[in-house]
Amino acid sequence: MADHPITPRATDYAQWYQDVIAQAELAEAAEVVKGCMVVRPHGWAIWEKMQADLDRRFKETGHQNAAFPLLIPQSFISKEAQHVEGFSPELAVVTHAGGKELEEPYVIRPTSETIIGHFFAKWIQSHRDLPLLINQWANVMRWELRTRMFLRTGEFWWQEGHTAHATHGECQEEVVRMLDVYRDFCREVMAMPVIRGIKTANERFAGALETRTIEGLMQDGKALQCGTSHDLGQNFGKAFDVMFQNTAGEREYVWQTSWGVSTRLIGALIMTHSDDEGLVCPPRLAPIHVAIVPIYKTDEERASVIECARRVATELRADGLTVKVDEREGMKPGAKYYEWERKGVPLRLEIGPRDVAANTCMAKRRIAGVDEKGKPMKETLGLDDIGVGVGRILDEFQALLLQRAKERQAKSIISVDNWGDFEVAFAGNDSRFVLAHWDGTTATELAIKEATKATIRCLPYDGDVPGFPNLVEPGRCVKTGAPSTQRVLFAKNY
Amino acid sequence: MADHPITPRATDYAQWYQDVIAQAELAEAAEVVKGCMVVRPHGWAIWEKMQADLDRRFKETGHQNAAFPLLIPQSFISKEAQHVEGFSPELAVVTHAGGKELEEPYVIRPTSETIIGHFFAKWIQSHRDLPLLINQWANVMRWELRTRMFLRTGEFWWQEGHTAHATHGECQEEVVRMLDVYRDFCREVMAMPVIRGIKTANERFAGALETRTIEGLMQDGKALQCGTSHDLGQNFGKAFDVMFQNTAGEREYVWQTSWGVSTRLIGALIMTHSDDEGLVCPPRLAPIHVAIVPIYKTDEERASVIECARRVATELRADGLTVKVDEREGMKPGAKYYEWERKGVPLRLEIGPRDVAANTCMAKRRIAGVDEKGKPMKETLGLDDIGVGVGRILDEFQALLLQRAKERQAKSIISVDNWGDFEVAFAGNDSRFVLAHWDGTTATELAIKEATKATIRCLPYDGDVPGFPNLVEPGRCVKTGAPSTQRVLFAKNY
Repeated sequence: MADHPITPRATDYAQWYQDVIAQAELAEAAEVVKGCMVVRPHGWAIWEKMQADLDRRFKETGHQNAAFPLLIPQSFISKEAQHVEGFSPELAVVTHAGGKELEEPYVIRPTSETIIGHFFAKWIQSHRDLPLLINQWANVMRWELRTRMFLRTGEFWWQEGHTAHATHGECQEEVVRMLDVYRDFCREVMAMPVIRGIKTANERFAGALETRTIEGLMQDGKALQCGTSHDLGQNFGKAFDVMFQNTAGEREYVWQTSWGVSTRLIGALIMTHSDDEGLVCPPRLAPIHVAIVPIYKTDEERASVIECARRVATELRADGLTVKVDEREGMKPGAKYYEWERKGVPLRLEIGPRDVAANTCMAKRRIAGVDEKGKPMKETLGLDDIGVGVGRILDEFQALLLQRAKERQAKSIISVDNWGDFEVAFAGNDSRFVLAHWDGTTATELAIKEATKATIRCLPYDGDVPGFPNLVEPGRCVKTGAPSTQRVLFAKNY
Repeated sequence: MADHPITPRATDYAQWYQDVIAQAELAEAAEVVKGCMVVRPHGWAIWEKMQADLDRRFKETGHQNAAFPLLIPQSFISKEAQHVEGFSPELAVVTHAGGKELEEPYVIRPTSETIIGHFFAKWIQSHRDLPLLINQWANVMRWELRTRMFLRTGEFWWQEGHTAHATHGECQEEVVRMLDVYRDFCREVMAMPVIRGIKTANERFAGALETRTIEGLMQDGKALQCGTSHDLGQNFGKAFDVMFQNTAGEREYVWQTSWGVSTRLIGALIMTHSDDEGLVCPPRLAPIHVAIVPIYKTDEERASVIECARRVATELRADGLTVKVDEREGMKPGAKYYEWERKGVPLRLEIGPRDVAANTCMAKRRIAGVDEKGKPMKETLGLDDIGVGVGRILDEFQALLLQRAKERQAKSIISVDNWGDFEVAFAGNDSRFVLAHWDGTTATELAIKEATKATIRCLPYDGDVPGFPNLVEPGRCVKTGAPSTQRVLFAKNY
């Protein structure tokens, strides 16, 4: 039971986000470990479902999992010039171990390109060893000043793909392929549309030739970078001497990629679908699909209603669903309803004595319309084919969430051609997805950020922005008026 | 292809162990990170199968997964007196982060009783919050001086169950239940018999009232502690103020357990089943169940044989098996055979032109008997019902491995009643499972270890030691002659 209601989004969006996490018991700040968090069972169960689905997609595209050391010799980070610049300020450093000061400190991995590069150099000799397609599920650590649960924490959990290829072409194909895997996962499983694109040099991964990204739109109009896929070129190959003998017998540096998504996706999930009642979770990621609340007055009613509820649960579980029969005593049905709503259970079934008699139950989706009296709409389901009815509602609900998110995304995207309109779009706390021309310089990019807090999220794939099929067109930079060849995507971001 | 053969067990058992790991590409020493290892894809795939099966068992017994911070404030370790004494010498310490020296250092978790105790204190208020049944899959770090891959490394991967209960009785039941889960897993999945028992005070987990263990017998006669389950009593509850209001309205400390198994089980797997040809893996844990080697001379033969091999693979995959069709060119069938044997693939199918014509294939188990000519026995399988034949052979192979391991275990166990025989049993490099009386003192336990290197593995469950149904009987300590009430299990150990 919650003793603290959820702050409405309209009142304080940031507080709403924290409240949803607390009320759904997804996670909590670790406090005693600066900037870190505990992921509680209900939150971790969502991550496990994300992992299972992604892991299947990675294996289907030929990747194998492995595990590399948590600790990285500090000197490794410095071997790639841009990498050390990007990550040095955020490192946690182990200086003592086993009661002694270490000769060389270790850093806790902020990402594993360096240590994995070291081992790739041992494993790769010949073109026959390529491509080498590895993924790791791991915890990583980046000592951030400002943290926010799931979005940016000291420690977080992720997967990092690391691959090595014989040619730049194959390497680039892999970068594109894995970004598409992420895009498909977001749409099919998270019910979240994203825009694929290429990062500007300024937003690129430290050590990459090119970074591709998927950008999601949160309900407050801000963007969330949901996943990235990097073309590392030969940068780490040269830093760690990862070479292979090509078919002509010559030694060459390999071409590498890396790509990752993290527990940040849980933050994306919350800010894409949830509402003032709490978490909204697509059925494909819901730790509990169905909560059955028995309704009764007498002991006799209780016995028959609970017997019926358990029977329904058994039947639904046989279909692979996770079902909770809420038999807690001394708690009113309404309180149970609110609790399962806060936790994002997609479907509630209510079973009372009259339902038992009629061999039916009342079904209420986590997001239902309201009837003419303003009451949430419920649907009567027959118990004889309860699996069919529940399956249909869950499928519909998954589709509905994607539809809602797509509509919100489409409504948020505008095209802007002058600086005045641009400033209005990002006035105060406002944000949206703004397509505008940019002169291609980092100086202008930073000046725009300075003036509006909006950043270039990406140079979107042509065709990926609903309503704006052609972004590649001549124009003039919204800030400087200098010539531009394509519109880019601006937004404030998390 | 291996360029270094596997050292026979009889020549150098420790080297054989390293060779099997290297040749099966299970793992390698990290070298640049002292005492740590990289688990390579073939090794990690075995761990993933172990995880999936164990995780299902944990969930079936009501546990939920969560994730707690990697870092623990150093002061936390000191809050439980025995805990700090046990773990202090092995800690890796983070003193700097984000470019600054930390006010209080963090240690990388060697185990998580302390940090989890801290959060349990927040989550538990009332008897209604109990039992709280949590598990975590995580990496942990213990800075060990002598390391050996999988068995003892600086970083390792494990699961740690942490539960809180209202009464000592329920807590003890949990300790017993989870040890049994481990025992069942070892037998049913790893095909490895273990002996359950209680650790002596000297071998107890630092901070526990009681530690229960499962002990496996390795092929060299040494014991490997394969999993432990601890009754923590109220020790951590008192250290971290984990209290609940009982049904009478009084505040009490909770009773806690913790229990874990780790990637060490891969070491147990290797040393239980493998042979001088390399890894032997029970089908239930094999990353690849079947390797199909096409045999041909001409291009025409190649085409028809490979077509047939792919068809068989598709059929077996539909049964949920992982199948590799080894189509590599320029490599002789014999070289392929050795490679899949080294990697522990349970079943090899050979398909040549005559097999295609006869609609059959030759099946060879990873461990086969030999025929009258000394050649490995193969079996002809019809392709029309290849799934049935392969399924039967894999089931038989799983059962055979358990049977072999049980027979080896039974042969290794002896009962000893005088010090001379005891010394003989552990002479030189020898070890076995020795049942002997012990006077119950730590002094004698340490004196025996000093004299023979044998340690008390546990006070076995009565009935768990094959051939010795009654260990509880009056006797005299094998070292001091003082009275004893039961035989205990001695062995040298990893």
